[in-house]
Amino acid sequence: MVLNTGDTENGRLLVRGADQPGIVASVSSVLADFGANVVSLDQYSSDPEGGRFFQRTEFHMPGFSARLDDLKKALTVALTDELNLDWNLVEGRRAKRVAIFVSKSDHCMLDLLWRHRRGELNMNVSMVVSNHPDLSDDVRSFGIPYIYVPVPKDDKAAAEQRHLEILQGNVDLVVLARYMQIISGDFLRRVGAPVINIHHSFLPAFVGAGPYQKAKDRGVKLVGATAHYVTEDLDEGPIIEQDVVRVTHKINTADLARRGADVERQVLARAVAWHCDDRVLRDGNSTIVF
Amino acid sequence: MVLNTGDTENGRLLVRGADQPGIVASVSSVLADFGANVVSLDQYSSDPEGGRFFQRTEFHMPGFSARLDDLKKALTVALTDELNLDWNLVEGRRAKRVAIFVSKSDHCMLDLLWRHRRGELNMNVSMVVSNHPDLSDDVRSFGIPYIYVPVPKDDKAAAEQRHLEILQGNVDLVVLARYMQIISGDFLRRVGAPVINIHHSFLPAFVGAGPYQKAKDRGVKLVGATAHYVTEDLDEGPIIEQDVVRVTHKINTADLARRGADVERQVLARAVAWHCDDRVLRDGNSTIVF
Amino acid sequence: MVLNTGDTENGRLLVRGADQPGIVASVSSVLADFGANVVSLDQYSSDPEGGRFFQRTEFHMPGFSARLDDLKKALTVALTDELNLDWNLVEGRRAKRVAIFVSKSDHCMLDLLWRHRRGELNMNVSMVVSNHPDLSDDVRSFGIPYIYVPVPKDDKAAAEQRHLEILQGNVDLVVLARYMQIISGDFLRRVGAPVINIHHSFLPAFVGAGPYQKAKDRGVKLVGATAHYVTEDLDEGPIIEQDVVRVTHKINTADLARRGADVERQVLARAVAWHCDDRVLRDGNSTIVF
Amino acid sequence: MVLNTGDTENGRLLVRGADQPGIVASVSSVLADFGANVVSLDQYSSDPEGGRFFQRTEFHMPGFSARLDDLKKALTVALTDELNLDWNLVEGRRAKRVAIFVSKSDHCMLDLLWRHRRGELNMNVSMVVSNHPDLSDDVRSFGIPYIYVPVPKDDKAAAEQRHLEILQGNVDLVVLARYMQIISGDFLRRVGAPVINIHHSFLPAFVGAGPYQKAKDRGVKLVGATAHYVTEDLDEGPIIEQDVVRVTHKINTADLARRGADVERQVLARAVAWHCDDRVLRDGNSTIVF
Repeated sequence: MVLNTGDTENGRLLVRGADQPGIVASVSSVLADFGANVVSLDQYSSDPEGGRFFQRTEFHMPGFSARLDDLKKALTVALTDELNLDWNLVEGRRAKRVAIFVSKSDHCMLDLLWRHRRGELNMNVSMVVSNHPDLSDDVRSFGIPYIYVPVPKDDKAAAEQRHLEILQGNVDLVVLARYMQIISGDFLRRVGAPVINIHHSFLPAFVGAGPYQKAKDRGVKLVGATAHYVTEDLDEGPIIEQDVVRVTHKINTADLARRGADVERQVLARAVAWHCDDRVLRDGNSTIVF
Repeated sequence: MVLNTGDTENGRLLVRGADQPGIVASVSSVLADFGANVVSLDQYSSDPEGGRFFQRTEFHMPGFSARLDDLKKALTVALTDELNLDWNLVEGRRAKRVAIFVSKSDHCMLDLLWRHRRGELNMNVSMVVSNHPDLSDDVRSFGIPYIYVPVPKDDKAAAEQRHLEILQGNVDLVVLARYMQIISGDFLRRVGAPVINIHHSFLPAFVGAGPYQKAKDRGVKLVGATAHYVTEDLDEGPIIEQDVVRVTHKINTADLARRGADVERQVLARAVAWHCDDRVLRDGNSTIVF
Repeated sequence: MVLNTGDTENGRLLVRGADQPGIVASVSSVLADFGANVVSLDQYSSDPEGGRFFQRTEFHMPGFSARLDDLKKALTVALTDELNLDWNLVEGRRAKRVAIFVSKSDHCMLDLLWRHRRGELNMNVSMVVSNHPDLSDDVRSFGIPYIYVPVPKDDKAAAEQRHLEILQGNVDLVVLARYMQIISGDFLRRVGAPVINIHHSFLPAFVGAGPYQKAKDRGVKLVGATAHYVTEDLDEGPIIEQDVVRVTHKINTADLARRGADVERQVLARAVAWHCDDRVLRDGNSTIVF
Repeated sequence: MVLNTGDTENGRLLVRGADQPGIVASVSSVLADFGANVVSLDQYSSDPEGGRFFQRTEFHMPGFSARLDDLKKALTVALTDELNLDWNLVEGRRAKRVAIFVSKSDHCMLDLLWRHRRGELNMNVSMVVSNHPDLSDDVRSFGIPYIYVPVPKDDKAAAEQRHLEILQGNVDLVVLARYMQIISGDFLRRVGAPVINIHHSFLPAFVGAGPYQKAKDRGVKLVGATAHYVTEDLDEGPIIEQDVVRVTHKINTADLARRGADVERQVLARAVAWHCDDRVLRDGNSTIVF
């Protein structure tokens, strides 16, 4: 069962830490004490003994918002003090505040905005930020602010400073929806929100410029896309979702890129949806997707 | 984490019943009391309030086999008496005893026997039963008994009686791996084990004889297969797994069937693997696959 | 190689009829006589002897438009008179004129309009026709006429008459992009253009109302969509394209429909793209997709 | 239409060279002059003007074998002399003679042998060659010679010399079905037959040892396989076929490899099937798969 977005009595509890007997029992007892009904529970241990533990619990609890502080106190005792676990409690009614970064390609961004309008994604789009003015009309027709921040080649730092002023404290997630600028480690450390990126991907991977041409030259039969969290190692962060589409020799390089674009928007939309539902837990450079 | 087959300290607990607050807490408490470490826990509720509840818990517990009876007693108190739930406890070391039924097509059966030999499936193949003698050499080369039970058109009941004598008490699962005979409701009620079948399937479905020709005549672009539990409504039982493969107009009817066969063996192998790991819970005519 | 849309020197020749030796030679000779370079050639025979023959040839020919009539005369002699074949010659620069029919669901229509705007589809959208006024703003923001034709339950014939007045002579293709009204055989005979429809599809198919609920109740693991030409047998016409997406028990009926919608728009977009490139040839109730 | 293997009146003509107007006409005329009926014709040009041309024609011709030499003479005049094209003519009745190389993993080899026994592949398996004795019983149960050629670390050249003695003149294709030895450029030049290899592949690719562990560490959601022709650049040769399967965080590294193995055998079987039907034409480091 998927709970309706916006219900004030729904919550999610995310727990992670060193695996040990009794964690699930402890979490469940606290929730049961508060009269919460567990709607879905996913749990993962990296090893049968001595591994890392991850749990996501979605629950329905009468009077949840009013009793939030009490629940937090009880969880601090049961999980922090007694079991030394990390956890956070999310109110189902609070949609993630999202900034979408885009350059000139509209396919990923439009797909997100349209799904958002249909109510498919548990997010609010606070703004779209771009280094080009081209897509402003499209974005504003959805009633969403479009902020044009040029990124001069010789002063990228100033542009990132501008981004930080706009973003800090205002967003819970940054989505790079075909934003064709490199993000600095400094930006990542200071922005205060995870950053999700989408990039093309092939089997086997083609590194560097002109990947679709390289793929064409080797006769690849699949093109794909990978959505991942951005880390300082560009395009090497934890993978959230991937998919592929079949291609043939008849398809030229431009069409390869177009097929790739179709996969990109699907993969990015799924990654954003899962992140906004708190389904993605990071485990080092890997991910658990519940 | 997937636990190793055959470990004597591994167990699985399956629980189902009317949803109510506190079930997960209760299960977890009993397991924690016995020092069991939860290795994986999957839970599903059909509705946020008043739905049906399903849970599969895989755990590692020192001295599990020796303490099995004590654990059962504790679960009876906590789950049966207090919460009115159905449950069963499975020892990880006990592989399912499986009978494979086959006619003349070898693709599904060979795939199961080969995966079994590689140790991919948590099962023991007790026997292969067939209404034809053709595949006996293949089966016996795997060291598995091949039992030939002819099914005369005018006395199918006698053949089923013979089957029951062989199977009752001896097997935990019957797999119809392209067994081209109709199974009676009487057999299903008496055999004392679930029966899994594989059949071709299309979008949209083509009912009756010659489905591949019908599919060809309509220009289908996908052919597929469905593995399901057998019920009295032939081919209408709860679906365990499905998959498809892409086809084109170039492929003739015989090749359509061959492509379909490739999907069949994959789908059946996954369904059997999941069943043998107790991952498939029935919910009316639907399934929960954890 | 895919030729660029709009090039005045590109053409496509479609041939079909009773298979016989010498067809390919004859077609190729005529084109070679005119100095045309064959860019792609696809050919299909339903049987090695005595079957039905289909061929699509894409070519590049200097001065094509100016010499169109001469080429037609030569083809009439070579193909019609000598070999008794059907054929038609398409100018690559003439994009298909398309009318999109829609009701309230926007997903398939918006996907077509976005792709059209990006230049992905070799078509011009002449108009969007709807039995509801809801989507007019969206459509008009693309600069495309939105024509609202209410369809009263007691006078559907009048609405179809209105449709025919708008469409006849104006469009080369009608696309039903989730148009929730039954199309009469009379309309199909008179509209003078093929009609493509998209509908959900499952393995196995669920007939009648509430298909997603029925699918949920049986535990289906795949939902899909089928794009097909509309014939008088509703939803039974020749299939152009199909695809599926994997689902699990966790997904409720509303989300099943949403996943289905995602497949629908992809499948419909591919079917329309192929039709507009004259890649789809009908063969009775089947299709050849080159 | 796929022609039956073994029919003495079936042939395939493969043509490649510099694109120029009139090639298809010329090929078709020669075949028509001999009364051949074109059963399928696939053609590809890498560019609208001045590209590379590829054609595969499958035809049915009464008395084909008896008239083979005459047809070759006519093709030499029409294609070699007049158009400077490369071509070869294949008799449909002559199945490719194949040597399968294997080490200890049986999955790819067994799949090929099963399919061969079922008549799915247009090949004869002349022998299985291995650097280990382990799989000899399995192979010989199919009635196929198993040749054990140890490959000592300090004298690989001697082993390759032994291989060449066995293979030269005896086989039309070498298939590396999980043969875990590096093949030298010298071997490739001297063996006189194309060599197909299967290797795991990921999105993005993980280079070097322990690829499944690396994939696991990054949280990949798809694992796959690539079948390709072997060139001196190990694992960088022209791709024939690729496929992927979806995985989750629940799957450990050993199971990742198992899932990968399932894809490997499917992908290799398709690549071998297509090669044996002469459907794969090399274009530099790319492939055309008709």
